Amino acid sequence: MEKEFTEYVKKMTNINEAVSLMYWDLRTGAPKKGVSQRSEVIGTLSAEVFAMSTSDQMKTYIDELSQEQVYSSLSEVTKKTLEEVKKDYERNTKIPPEEFKEYVILQSQAESVWEEARERSDFAMFQPYLEKLVEFNKRFIGYWGYDGNKYNTLLDMYEPGVTVDIIDATFSKLRDRIVPLLQKITEAGKPDISFLFEKFPKEKQKEFSLQVLKEMGYDFQAGRLDETVHPFAIGLNPGDVRVTTRYDESDFRTAVFGTIHEGGHALYEQNLSEDLVGTPLSTGTSMGIHESQSLFWENFVGRNRGFWKHHYASLKKYAGGQFDQVDLDAFYKAINIVEPSFIRIEADELTYALHIIVRYEIEKGLFNDEIEVKDLPRIWNEKMQEYLGITPENDSQGVLQDVHWSGGSFGYFPSYALGYIYAAQLKQAMLREVPEFDELLEKGELKPIQEWLSRNIHQYGKTKKPMEILEDVTGEGLNPDYLIRYFEEKYSSLYSL
Amino acid sequence: MEKEFTEYVKKMTNINEAVSLMYWDLRTGAPKKGVSQRSEVIGTLSAEVFAMSTSDQMKTYIDELSQEQVYSSLSEVTKKTLEEVKKDYERNTKIPPEEFKEYVILQSQAESVWEEARERSDFAMFQPYLEKLVEFNKRFIGYWGYDGNKYNTLLDMYEPGVTVDIIDATFSKLRDRIVPLLQKITEAGKPDISFLFEKFPKEKQKEFSLQVLKEMGYDFQAGRLDETVHPFAIGLNPGDVRVTTRYDESDFRTAVFGTIHEGGHALYEQNLSEDLVGTPLSTGTSMGIHESQSLFWENFVGRNRGFWKHHYASLKKYAGGQFDQVDLDAFYKAINIVEPSFIRIEADELTYALHIIVRYEIEKGLFNDEIEVKDLPRIWNEKMQEYLGITPENDSQGVLQDVHWSGGSFGYFPSYALGYIYAAQLKQAMLREVPEFDELLEKGELKPIQEWLSRNIHQYGKTKKPMEILEDVTGEGLNPDYLIRYFEEKYSSLYSL
Repeated sequence: MEKEFTEYVKKMTNINEAVSLMYWDLRTGAPKKGVSQRSEVIGTLSAEVFAMSTSDQMKTYIDELSQEQVYSSLSEVTKKTLEEVKKDYERNTKIPPEEFKEYVILQSQAESVWEEARERSDFAMFQPYLEKLVEFNKRFIGYWGYDGNKYNTLLDMYEPGVTVDIIDATFSKLRDRIVPLLQKITEAGKPDISFLFEKFPKEKQKEFSLQVLKEMGYDFQAGRLDETVHPFAIGLNPGDVRVTTRYDESDFRTAVFGTIHEGGHALYEQNLSEDLVGTPLSTGTSMGIHESQSLFWENFVGRNRGFWKHHYASLKKYAGGQFDQVDLDAFYKAINIVEPSFIRIEADELTYALHIIVRYEIEKGLFNDEIEVKDLPRIWNEKMQEYLGITPENDSQGVLQDVHWSGGSFGYFPSYALGYIYAAQLKQAMLREVPEFDELLEKGELKPIQEWLSRNIHQYGKTKKPMEILEDVTGEGLNPDYLIRYFEEKYSSLYSL
Repeated sequence: MEKEFTEYVKKMTNINEAVSLMYWDLRTGAPKKGVSQRSEVIGTLSAEVFAMSTSDQMKTYIDELSQEQVYSSLSEVTKKTLEEVKKDYERNTKIPPEEFKEYVILQSQAESVWEEARERSDFAMFQPYLEKLVEFNKRFIGYWGYDGNKYNTLLDMYEPGVTVDIIDATFSKLRDRIVPLLQKITEAGKPDISFLFEKFPKEKQKEFSLQVLKEMGYDFQAGRLDETVHPFAIGLNPGDVRVTTRYDESDFRTAVFGTIHEGGHALYEQNLSEDLVGTPLSTGTSMGIHESQSLFWENFVGRNRGFWKHHYASLKKYAGGQFDQVDLDAFYKAINIVEPSFIRIEADELTYALHIIVRYEIEKGLFNDEIEVKDLPRIWNEKMQEYLGITPENDSQGVLQDVHWSGGSFGYFPSYALGYIYAAQLKQAMLREVPEFDELLEKGELKPIQEWLSRNIHQYGKTKKPMEILEDVTGEGLNPDYLIRYFEEKYSSLYSL
């Protein structure tokens, strides 16, 4: 039975791999006129996987393999796999099919309405759809059940084991320390960053990005770098993990930091244990831990002074003139500029967390009936003013900016900030074993860093839960202190506070 | 029932589209380390389509929809679709599953043995595998049945309606006229072609190729051009038909004529009727008709003097110096050089047919028990000497050169030569409606040519059989006279015979 189950799950995984390749292709150069038919193909294969995950056959496997005597004879990988498919089975079968179908239709309508609403900065247009999306998700929580707080059920989908209690304690501490720090920074005045925006030819940006990716330990025999509009990394299997990036010739940061960020995601997927291939365990364990990897590389490596001590000469060469009059300190300060802004995805590392906290507090309020959808624009703007000191001029700069809610993704946002917190905790743990961290960066030796992350995190895939990874690696649970310390030390020094 | 059947077939078509994308990806830049897992995914999806094509469900559809009263109510597209799936069903279910499994294993073993045998030029190594492959196919013919000649059953897989009798009459006439023509050409002496082999930068070859593709009417909103080792065109759906090519900086002909050739295939797939999408009819009607399209463009357009009268100045510009001392006539003569050679895929348009005839005669002999596998090297070399006047020095230059037989593809080769014959017949028919053909080429106006081909051939996909297309368009059956006349006129003039 274990063998048949393994084959069954492998088939699902294989179909998903085909879907992932189509997704990559659509976003890196698939001809426009083929898109609608390609979307149908994706629909066909996704429906097939969904059907398999909720089939009677799957139920039989789950029931039989869960029997105590059978279960104890299973391999560790099969045990964990069983746990995953069981979770999916329960989540997917508890919603009445008719209701789910209605929800899928609503999702796709809501996405296109949201696009137009954002365009027009017209929240009222989107409001009824968002209300329905929230209603559906509340009903789903009813079907799925919840523990302690209704919102926990949504959080669990992206960050298993993380609850409202944990996040409340963490985020409030973070918020209470970042807000005053940000005020001091704002008062200290802005550094000169004008030199960042000179023309830096795309091809040269690409060469530099490729060089950094290689140093990070990204394996080009198991991946490739392509261009896209909204960059992402995608793991098809550990031997084929692709990075995409976007080039802005008047701001090299988009491609360089974007590639480092996506490269961090890619290293995770490239270094999953081969034993997990063909199972749902062969991917990052959670959104937040995945994000911790991309942010680790982007910020703790890519925005580190030592890293640029090593790379700045090379960047100057590729840029051809742009930085000739700019010394390392001025450059370092510019790429670490902190400045409150409206759009999350354009935010600096310090204010980014505040953007997330705004969203978290709103989502929690919505699912605990403390906030109504109709009040979102006001509440959004109030929180932005309170935490970031700025008020959006319109809703497209505010509550309408993100795609997530239009697709019914609630509970997803916190993972981004959790990624920051994890990353800082991991950095602290790494320093115990790799105390020469800064020196390695100054020498351009990034491989030991990748190896440490692969050994401690990547290889396990989903066999360890996020909190398990965190505790095994750092010896403690979620703790924002390291991130706070990092921010306070770094920005006190940078802004001479 | 028709609706369910249509949905069922659409699902198969959609899965096939995913497989095709994976095939394209593997050949245009998929990372090496992901290949073996990707092959498994292809295996999973192909097996799924095979299972669907031979399922009890499929049998029920076939039986029910074939009932006279039901059948008469079906749409034309469904009728033709039913015919296709029925043919597949019968072909695939008549072979005992165990035997088919054994055959699939043999195929993959034979392919790798063939690779090594060709490398070492050691036919004896490949012989036992080839013997088994022939034996299996003979047994399959037993299961499938045959009409007139056993080899007809194999021919029918690639070129429905074409039989040994038809080909014998056609190929022997062709052979009897080409062989003496080739002798005269060989005696006339070679033109200077040394200027073809100067360095022509890849990027410039690409720009020129793109320009020609665009003029041909290839729609870049429904396709793209990529690099590969063995060029091909692939239709995923009419809105996404991709061309691949290879650049040889010391011989621009590889990319330029290769791109025109694959572009010809691509135009076929881009201009299939939208009504056929989601059915097995949404592709070229046969190997031979497909090849007629690529050869039409490559030879009747791409090797036409008028075409180069228009394009030569542009090619010169892209080449940057290479052709400055070469006048149009010398260039035209060089790109039409005829010279007997050993390797089929490197052959010129005249000798190419002879390469195919050698293979056809051997395959026919094998399946009629007139030739034994062990005698192939000798027979191959004798025929090469007889028709082309040259004898391969070893088997890798001879009987081992092609991959086809190692994969069990017998009956495939004749399509290549049929493609030439069809193309010449189509050209003749086109001239009746587009008498200004040569002038259009001189003016670089290729669009009317594409439109004629799309209107008369492409749009129908598989709804018309090859012979039906031929008769509808030309008013007659297979007739090699037009190709012979084209060869005789062209080469008599070129070589002043």
